[in-house]
Amino acid sequence: MPQLGLLRGRAWTVLLGQLRRPPGSVCIRAVRSHSQGTRDLSPQQMVVREKILDVIVSCFKRHGAKGLDTPAFELKEMLTEKYGEDSGLIYDLKDQGGELLSLRYDLTVPFARYLAMNKVKKMKRYHVGKVWRRESPTKVQGRYREFYQCDFDIAGQFDPMIPDAECLKIMCEILSGLQLGDFLIKVNDRRILDGIFAVCGVPESKFHAICSSVDKLDKISWKDVRHEMVVKKGLAPEVADQIGDYVQCHGGISLVEQMFQDPRLSQNKQVLEGLGDLKLLFEYLTLFGVAEKVSFDLSLARGLDYYTGVIYEAVLLQTPVHAKEEPLNVGSVAAGGRYDGLVGMFDPRGHKVPCVGLSIGVERIFSILEQRMKTFGEKIRTTETQVFVATPQKNFLQERLKLIAELWDAGIKAELMYKNNPKLLPQLHYCENMGIPLVVITGEQELKEGVITLRSVASREEVAIKRENLVAEIQKRLSES
Amino acid sequence: MPQLGLLRGRAWTVLLGQLRRPPGSVCIRAVRSHSQGTRDLSPQQMVVREKILDVIVSCFKRHGAKGLDTPAFELKEMLTEKYGEDSGLIYDLKDQGGELLSLRYDLTVPFARYLAMNKVKKMKRYHVGKVWRRESPTKVQGRYREFYQCDFDIAGQFDPMIPDAECLKIMCEILSGLQLGDFLIKVNDRRILDGIFAVCGVPESKFHAICSSVDKLDKISWKDVRHEMVVKKGLAPEVADQIGDYVQCHGGISLVEQMFQDPRLSQNKQVLEGLGDLKLLFEYLTLFGVAEKVSFDLSLARGLDYYTGVIYEAVLLQTPVHAKEEPLNVGSVAAGGRYDGLVGMFDPRGHKVPCVGLSIGVERIFSILEQRMKTFGEKIRTTETQVFVATPQKNFLQERLKLIAELWDAGIKAELMYKNNPKLLPQLHYCENMGIPLVVITGEQELKEGVITLRSVASREEVAIKRENLVAEIQKRLSES
Repeated sequence: MPQLGLLRGRAWTVLLGQLRRPPGSVCIRAVRSHSQGTRDLSPQQMVVREKILDVIVSCFKRHGAKGLDTPAFELKEMLTEKYGEDSGLIYDLKDQGGELLSLRYDLTVPFARYLAMNKVKKMKRYHVGKVWRRESPTKVQGRYREFYQCDFDIAGQFDPMIPDAECLKIMCEILSGLQLGDFLIKVNDRRILDGIFAVCGVPESKFHAICSSVDKLDKISWKDVRHEMVVKKGLAPEVADQIGDYVQCHGGISLVEQMFQDPRLSQNKQVLEGLGDLKLLFEYLTLFGVAEKVSFDLSLARGLDYYTGVIYEAVLLQTPVHAKEEPLNVGSVAAGGRYDGLVGMFDPRGHKVPCVGLSIGVERIFSILEQRMKTFGEKIRTTETQVFVATPQKNFLQERLKLIAELWDAGIKAELMYKNNPKLLPQLHYCENMGIPLVVITGEQELKEGVITLRSVASREEVAIKRENLVAEIQKRLSES
Repeated sequence: MPQLGLLRGRAWTVLLGQLRRPPGSVCIRAVRSHSQGTRDLSPQQMVVREKILDVIVSCFKRHGAKGLDTPAFELKEMLTEKYGEDSGLIYDLKDQGGELLSLRYDLTVPFARYLAMNKVKKMKRYHVGKVWRRESPTKVQGRYREFYQCDFDIAGQFDPMIPDAECLKIMCEILSGLQLGDFLIKVNDRRILDGIFAVCGVPESKFHAICSSVDKLDKISWKDVRHEMVVKKGLAPEVADQIGDYVQCHGGISLVEQMFQDPRLSQNKQVLEGLGDLKLLFEYLTLFGVAEKVSFDLSLARGLDYYTGVIYEAVLLQTPVHAKEEPLNVGSVAAGGRYDGLVGMFDPRGHKVPCVGLSIGVERIFSILEQRMKTFGEKIRTTETQVFVATPQKNFLQERLKLIAELWDAGIKAELMYKNNPKLLPQLHYCENMGIPLVVITGEQELKEGVITLRSVASREEVAIKRENLVAEIQKRLSES
């Protein structure tokens, strides 16, 4: 659901094709490349991505979510005033007559629009899809302009913090399931931040701007954030210092208790609501067995305008899983929070539907898993072919075509060489290279005897099978392996 | 791969949400709808689409294809001069600085660009993804501006017609697998059409324009096509009449033989090449057991500029599968052909990679299957939840949360009500409505005895299971069902 400002993967190869381009061909780059900040996914990469998406979607389904899909573009006006300082990164479509359109910037706003438009009051849905953000050219080397998000959201009026706790449980299940090493989920609450701003004396008109500054604490130091608050955003230095005392705190459930005791914060209604919810959240997380993965972190702000309550962000910790691996600073890989006002913005009567959700950033996870596969030299099969239909002899195309059609019709994954008279060795080499386990060989001898030679690629063993038993024998072998 | 000008599904509900909009709310339409010609897919619809895509992708994998993904937008210049008369339907992105971009119009041109950019000489790939076409507002009621294509293509230099025959075999497997009723695949060859135009005396500069007119023969009568040729495209009436004699022919392999005997056509080198290939194609299709599904149809032209050889299009025949169903004219559901020159257009040195492929139009298939489900009142499960964790008593949230976490951690798909004190009946009703097969019930009695009540929703039978055996018992039940 939420914006993942930090979730773009690093471009470990920025433009795949460029690396393979011969020198001297730079001038014709424009006629053969894709656009900046986007990439093609090769078959090897597709296999990795499919595995990641499979873990994520399985988890979403395990928690009872329904699927939903929305268009790639929305009416431009739907996206305005939803993303705060990042709104300039929205891709607009050219005005070619008709409606003004923009590419979706996340999956949360389209979900809220869907709920309002269809008057849905309650829904647990997941959505896996691409989103687009026009990152500035100077930044684009490290980020993608097109990337996948995997969102899970719970919409509806429920007893407090039960859905919120489930969202955090889901993040833990997915990050554990993907075996990305150790991770930590930072939580905070927008009401606590707003309360801190209020008791420190920030004018209400500056809450959003100051929140954006706090959001940068994971990238730049408090000193720099303070400088931005005072110089760029016109905050009194002593107010900034008071904020600094609070937002540099982090800890577990005990920090929640400690904040309850804070003489100034405990006077603020919003803070008390936020702390009360966080206390309940930690209680539920303990029952779910994931409380030790979660840290109350007052520096967490999340850039987006639409959050109204608890917010969270998962970061990978630096210890690599295996000693052989180089540590990789990947930062945030999942994030989310509660946004109780967004659906109401799309409803003509302002009817609210409270929502909470999370978004998994696939690109960073992808780059970690890809790097790991490279480190370990893992070979990835890019096809699922089970049987190759071969011949050692000329003029056997007809026989091979009849044979392979029989296999396909029986649901067996099969390939052959698109040649009238292929040589046997290249056919067998292809099977070894592609990891195809079985070869079916037909030739004059086989035809005369009414048999087919079935060869195991791994053991190189060959047996003669009666022609009419071939499909059954292959199915038996495949079910055993 | 190829453009499916005819493949957009009819908008059986044009704008889902609009139908549910209360009267009097028209004025605020803009703040809560999606853009014209697009739609959201509800959970029910998502299940139908997933099933369709599963049949299609399984078939592609059965034929040894690798996955590939390309960005939603391409550099604008990549798409120019590829789509003939339809180029005006391309969505451009607004110039916000940087490169000029357009949304992809099909999956074929990005595939050709990928091959050229990475110097890939041989590849069998599939690609399932959305494409976008700016259909005019008057047409948009019956067509979508965003829709899925499922493409399979074979790139590389091979012996003639073996990959082409496999493409037709795949179309047959998919259309049979989806149980869409009877279908027919029309085939023709661009070289035969060009040869006919040449021998009839069409100036070469008019080949594309006349080809576009012929392409309309499945929608309008020969009389109207002839009128367009003569009046709009300036063809001599006697030339049009000669073309008419040819393009109204269709038949099986015997028509190929007959055309070989035609005194004028047999003088044309291109025609002879095309007929020779079609003869070979029919031979292979016979070996694949699908020749009777294929008809040589001289009226088939396909709108796109990039085809160079054999072209084909699958149409559903009118007989409904079940007598109860209303016949639905859905027209073309799959199409494709050979495009040997497209990759060369992206290569700086013009190196060619011959390609042949097919594209399945999901939207029409979707509307047929959805209509069928409505007719038969089939109920679709939109979640996969296996177990519901319930309680008849107050103050059992903690116990339920501990229980459900245990199920999730064991990989069991489970839900509970997000309420502190839910009533039992609504919990059981939810299971019946959602088709959840098992309920786990905990309460004071169970807690005291160290057991859990396991209830089958269908039979309403309840048994007490020892708390520590619960996961094993559920897994046993699920594996048996």
